[in-house]
Amino acid sequence: MEPALHPDLEPIAFLLGSWRGEGDGEYPTVEAFRYGEQVEFGHVGKPYLFYRQRTWALDDGRPLHAEVGYLRSVGDGRLELVLAHPTGVVELALGAVADRTIELASTLVRSAPTAKEVTALERSIRLDEDGALRYELRMAAVGVDLALHLRGELRRA
Amino acid sequence: MEPALHPDLEPIAFLLGSWRGEGDGEYPTVEAFRYGEQVEFGHVGKPYLFYRQRTWALDDGRPLHAEVGYLRSVGDGRLELVLAHPTGVVELALGAVADRTIELASTLVRSAPTAKEVTALERSIRLDEDGALRYELRMAAVGVDLALHLRGELRRA
Repeated sequence: MEPALHPDLEPIAFLLGSWRGEGDGEYPTVEAFRYGEQVEFGHVGKPYLFYRQRTWALDDGRPLHAEVGYLRSVGDGRLELVLAHPTGVVELALGAVADRTIELASTLVRSAPTAKEVTALERSIRLDEDGALRYELRMAAVGVDLALHLRGELRRA
Repeated sequence: MEPALHPDLEPIAFLLGSWRGEGDGEYPTVEAFRYGEQVEFGHVGKPYLFYRQRTWALDDGRPLHAEVGYLRSVGDGRLELVLAHPTGVVELALGAVADRTIELASTLVRSAPTAKEVTALERSIRLDEDGALRYELRMAAVGVDLALHLRGELRRA
């Protein structure tokens, strides 16, 4: 039985469900690349969304990145994001939602001893009038300041 | 198509699959409680396991805790765990596996601004001869030093 949506989730309820699409990756240290992506947002009746994402190479489908965590709605449109990346990174980000646009900036990014060092992440996510969920991710890592890393466009799957 | 298991995962391959069982919770600040639990470990051919867990109250099935993240196998039995908790906590833990027994201790636990403060977590997980996956979790939180918090027993589901 699907639990009732927690009222605090109303401002981000537009995320709920499965999304699929493609994106463009770039970074000063890597060659530009394109990827496929699947995203899932779910809830259990509490004031947070479960979030799971994975991307793959468009040529052979091999898995690229993934991340998983929870997006907490803590009142007045304020958001807290807690994430784990299989690259060995944990992320805590704070932000807000207004008019189906979400802005999040990391307040903590920590890498495991054998992981590449990521120092900051900024995320913008918005649901556009045409039904597409579009996002950008800016990253500071391996000595590079915040720079555009990913830009994607997803549709309901 | 199921990808081939990455050879570095061999020492923790015994975790793969779905597990279900029950556990006992206690802590100096709460009344003792019992809970149901479901755990899933998966892989995509890379040297980490996806991990997802949720627990529920035995009386009415309402969701209690959950956590999600990745367990990285980084050589010589060493492990790195990156986790997100919907309570607003991110966790980075280091440890090792030997003889189907895993020990992990947090090196970083950080709480979001509106979350209860958790300061340390220690996990012991072992697959016993009888096929049960047994674990203990010790936690330091809300001003209490490391103390036993959870003890559970899971069987393949």
